[in-house]
Amino acid sequence: MASPKRLQGLTAATITPMTPDGEINLSVIGQYVDYLVKEQGVKNVFVNGTTGEGLALSTQERKQLAEEWVTKGKNKLDHVIIHVGALNLPEAKEMAKHAAVIGASGIAAIAPFFFKPTNKDTLVAFLREIASEAPGIPFYYYHIPSLTGVKIRVEELLDGIKEQIPTFQGVKFSDTDLLDFAQCVKNNKERFVLLYGVDEHLLSALAMGASGAVGSTYNYLGKKYNLMLEAFAKQDLVLAQQHQFCTGEFLSFVFKLGFGVAQTKAVMSFTSRIPMGPPRLPLLSASMDFIEKAKAKMDSLME
Amino acid sequence: MASPKRLQGLTAATITPMTPDGEINLSVIGQYVDYLVKEQGVKNVFVNGTTGEGLALSTQERKQLAEEWVTKGKNKLDHVIIHVGALNLPEAKEMAKHAAVIGASGIAAIAPFFFKPTNKDTLVAFLREIASEAPGIPFYYYHIPSLTGVKIRVEELLDGIKEQIPTFQGVKFSDTDLLDFAQCVKNNKERFVLLYGVDEHLLSALAMGASGAVGSTYNYLGKKYNLMLEAFAKQDLVLAQQHQFCTGEFLSFVFKLGFGVAQTKAVMSFTSRIPMGPPRLPLLSASMDFIEKAKAKMDSLME
Amino acid sequence: MASPKRLQGLTAATITPMTPDGEINLSVIGQYVDYLVKEQGVKNVFVNGTTGEGLALSTQERKQLAEEWVTKGKNKLDHVIIHVGALNLPEAKEMAKHAAVIGASGIAAIAPFFFKPTNKDTLVAFLREIASEAPGIPFYYYHIPSLTGVKIRVEELLDGIKEQIPTFQGVKFSDTDLLDFAQCVKNNKERFVLLYGVDEHLLSALAMGASGAVGSTYNYLGKKYNLMLEAFAKQDLVLAQQHQFCTGEFLSFVFKLGFGVAQTKAVMSFTSRIPMGPPRLPLLSASMDFIEKAKAKMDSLME
Amino acid sequence: MASPKRLQGLTAATITPMTPDGEINLSVIGQYVDYLVKEQGVKNVFVNGTTGEGLALSTQERKQLAEEWVTKGKNKLDHVIIHVGALNLPEAKEMAKHAAVIGASGIAAIAPFFFKPTNKDTLVAFLREIASEAPGIPFYYYHIPSLTGVKIRVEELLDGIKEQIPTFQGVKFSDTDLLDFAQCVKNNKERFVLLYGVDEHLLSALAMGASGAVGSTYNYLGKKYNLMLEAFAKQDLVLAQQHQFCTGEFLSFVFKLGFGVAQTKAVMSFTSRIPMGPPRLPLLSASMDFIEKAKAKMDSLME
Repeated sequence: MASPKRLQGLTAATITPMTPDGEINLSVIGQYVDYLVKEQGVKNVFVNGTTGEGLALSTQERKQLAEEWVTKGKNKLDHVIIHVGALNLPEAKEMAKHAAVIGASGIAAIAPFFFKPTNKDTLVAFLREIASEAPGIPFYYYHIPSLTGVKIRVEELLDGIKEQIPTFQGVKFSDTDLLDFAQCVKNNKERFVLLYGVDEHLLSALAMGASGAVGSTYNYLGKKYNLMLEAFAKQDLVLAQQHQFCTGEFLSFVFKLGFGVAQTKAVMSFTSRIPMGPPRLPLLSASMDFIEKAKAKMDSLME
Repeated sequence: MASPKRLQGLTAATITPMTPDGEINLSVIGQYVDYLVKEQGVKNVFVNGTTGEGLALSTQERKQLAEEWVTKGKNKLDHVIIHVGALNLPEAKEMAKHAAVIGASGIAAIAPFFFKPTNKDTLVAFLREIASEAPGIPFYYYHIPSLTGVKIRVEELLDGIKEQIPTFQGVKFSDTDLLDFAQCVKNNKERFVLLYGVDEHLLSALAMGASGAVGSTYNYLGKKYNLMLEAFAKQDLVLAQQHQFCTGEFLSFVFKLGFGVAQTKAVMSFTSRIPMGPPRLPLLSASMDFIEKAKAKMDSLME
Repeated sequence: MASPKRLQGLTAATITPMTPDGEINLSVIGQYVDYLVKEQGVKNVFVNGTTGEGLALSTQERKQLAEEWVTKGKNKLDHVIIHVGALNLPEAKEMAKHAAVIGASGIAAIAPFFFKPTNKDTLVAFLREIASEAPGIPFYYYHIPSLTGVKIRVEELLDGIKEQIPTFQGVKFSDTDLLDFAQCVKNNKERFVLLYGVDEHLLSALAMGASGAVGSTYNYLGKKYNLMLEAFAKQDLVLAQQHQFCTGEFLSFVFKLGFGVAQTKAVMSFTSRIPMGPPRLPLLSASMDFIEKAKAKMDSLME
Repeated sequence: MASPKRLQGLTAATITPMTPDGEINLSVIGQYVDYLVKEQGVKNVFVNGTTGEGLALSTQERKQLAEEWVTKGKNKLDHVIIHVGALNLPEAKEMAKHAAVIGASGIAAIAPFFFKPTNKDTLVAFLREIASEAPGIPFYYYHIPSLTGVKIRVEELLDGIKEQIPTFQGVKFSDTDLLDFAQCVKNNKERFVLLYGVDEHLLSALAMGASGAVGSTYNYLGKKYNLMLEAFAKQDLVLAQQHQFCTGEFLSFVFKLGFGVAQTKAVMSFTSRIPMGPPRLPLLSASMDFIEKAKAKMDSLME
């Protein structure tokens, strides 16, 4: 599946469907692929990341999910990126190798966050161990300091990284430090794919030169965000703002209610009508009250 | 001086000049005004804020500075906003009243941050006590959660604030939460002045609809930022990015060296050639090593 | 009043009485002194600290309070320590000088916490400026990193401090780092007074060698804590634990309800029957619900 | 191995020996057991915890280590507690079941910390899933909020926990909130084992009623800490303080140099002369400079 096309536009951070009793539910992934492509216009996925509860799944489950996404995405999706990051290197490496074998378009890894790398070299050494298990496919770094506490600046990380990790291809930049992001764009726009990962700020990052976006809301608001990307490409900033403000109003609304992966799962279930099931402990299912309010808000905005 | 013109464009958060032994140095403020207007194209100032070491000055010193800025800015500056925030209300109120008497264009106040307001109503009650001492001039809220720890969303704060604080005029929004900022723009663009306060992200905030900016770097990079504002106004995003990246490169460089109010003071001294003097304890003067490197970087970028 | 006796045992961090409309109420301080001495067995006070809302008062109000405590404490209290710390040095120095003039037993200062000292030398330089205004009375450092964010270890601070601050006498150590505290005891027990400031952990600190305690709960639980100190002095650890657990149960109970300076004020009002009045903004008065529950708990424990 | 004896005294949080190329080294564990028992007087171990780099090991490696510790500890150790906590429940449950099968004395689990439980019930539900896989052996909760960010008070957690987790036996309490700890002691001393986990504060926790301790320093300072426990048991607080201050001086010294799991590994290597090997990425081996200084300090204190 490794696509010759460079990754751009929207990438959905996939949700992991589960059965009512909390086992992974592979059976709806084909339907999920079709929904993304046909209803949302999204042709790239980032599997087993934060939204996908990747770190709450066993290595075995993560492999099964990766395989199903690659299989069902064939000839439909452009890029299937598998997140293989883990706190322990042996399992991360095992998943990297597996992703390459099954034909994923690329792999990604988060920084370790129990013990944390304290400088760039240590982080690169950790990532290199993973990337080198999949030498034939691109590697992306998943930068999310608010969750990991690893605050090594990406600008610094990218400096010289190709020599250390030949398959290095880009970054999922899930942070609000737009100076760091801008420096990455300035120094690396030709070489690397710089995907912005804070959905509700995407227009800001486009202004700074983002080449694409990865996030959870593209699962159910992809169509709207695609309209924004189009408007931005045509330099119609007023229209782009309108679209950003529309999705922003939804997100601002649900943030006030309390919004996380469990609530994302619920929103996707009522938007796509594909049953996403409950999240896994320690997450709890969204409340009925949340679902009703979020659905009413979505309906009012998407009229 | 209260200007009929609505505040827009760049506002410099002023630096407080000091004598070598750490007393405030009022004698150079006239020169400072001329430098801002003539060399940087900046005609608005925000006095006694974070950059001005306002909270490290006595009430008496803050009044003297306010008076000097108003006097020397007459017929030269468009807006002289005096920051009158303090941990204790009696002195904040005293400074608010004083600012009105001397003819300031407006006042501003930071949230109290030793004891912190835990909800919107308490914060509004605190701010109202201050604003009501200066009923004839506009009031601005200074939002800087990274320093105060007060994370009440501005969108929420603005909702209904005119009924509580009739002189409420706008926000100095010094935070990276661009969703909160975008919601403020969406809901209040006609009524309030939404000034962005993270200089190195300004282009991002413009894309979200910022009506102006307040910050320390406009003291010495105002000219460059004005070029960016012009490019943005002409919808030339490529050129706007070039200017943003240029100032961003300087800031990224000095951030790595360690950059704060003391270093800002040093940069302003070598850029403007007006002696800003040392900072006050607990800040320490920038090192010679910093000054040399920062100056070399500035020279290389501004060629 | 500067007492020849070394400060030891319990020191009450005083509450600032206010009138119903939020002005300081000096009229009840004489009664307050008597209550502490006669009902609680507490003969030392720490005035204008966190509990006393010192940083929410104007310099003028702080001086008036200091004077009243010194006057009314004469021949009744052993030590009246005035907290003179502030974010700005000129006012802190003014208050230090004033405290000496009115005859306080000692002064204390918190680390500045808007701009923060980044190393020991800077903090010492800041404190020295204050202490040197009152060269005839002891100086205490008020260490409370959870509120200030200044995490310079006290062990390190004390090393060589007498050469820098000849009047240095001790520390109000309001932190849970009992290794740091133990090192202070080990190195300085003869020279300095090491007062522990986390009331609910006092027995732990006694085991590590604390020479006394400063805190808000000694206003209304001083009698009980004095019993603990006695039991500990007699090496009756079982009895000491009983007393600690009793006060701990009260504190654990009110912490769950939400407990801060405003609630302390309410507890003191119902315990001492001296009207403490409301707190000052941004604090809000304790709720009636809190007061009822806290009073019932207190009554049940003190039977 | 499940011992009829209640866990008390010191428990060593074991270090995981590794080969020079970073694989787990089971071959020295027999020797390690003998060293703990004979040289340090420590007869309980906590395997695969933070010190043991448990979360940086694969499930497979953790099982091998658990098995080796149980096997080699037979008839020598009193308690072999296996930490089976993980971010994902399936693997945690698999390790819990395995620990029971191989004959461990008990299991323990940390709170999940990527997605975090937001209330007591969710945390209990998560822990119950694990404990129920090993219904025949005691379960311990590993409380370490500074690393997990999960700040649910233990006092609250223990309330009613036996009904939810019948095998619940106690807590490794690695936090400085000694009020929470004291409340646990007060309410549960007969039912649960309350092991304190901040080694450098142990004497403080004994004063509050701790029934034992788990920590990394008991690997190499166990003998000294046992002397402290003896002195404390004899109510000789002065002698207990001397011992605490001695170990405290070592720890304070190495903390200033930078001290973590990697450095613990190095200290154990030079103290026990058993080669512990390097840590695993993202940790880096202690520097030679650290090792020399730490060794010299240890030698000077243990003379």
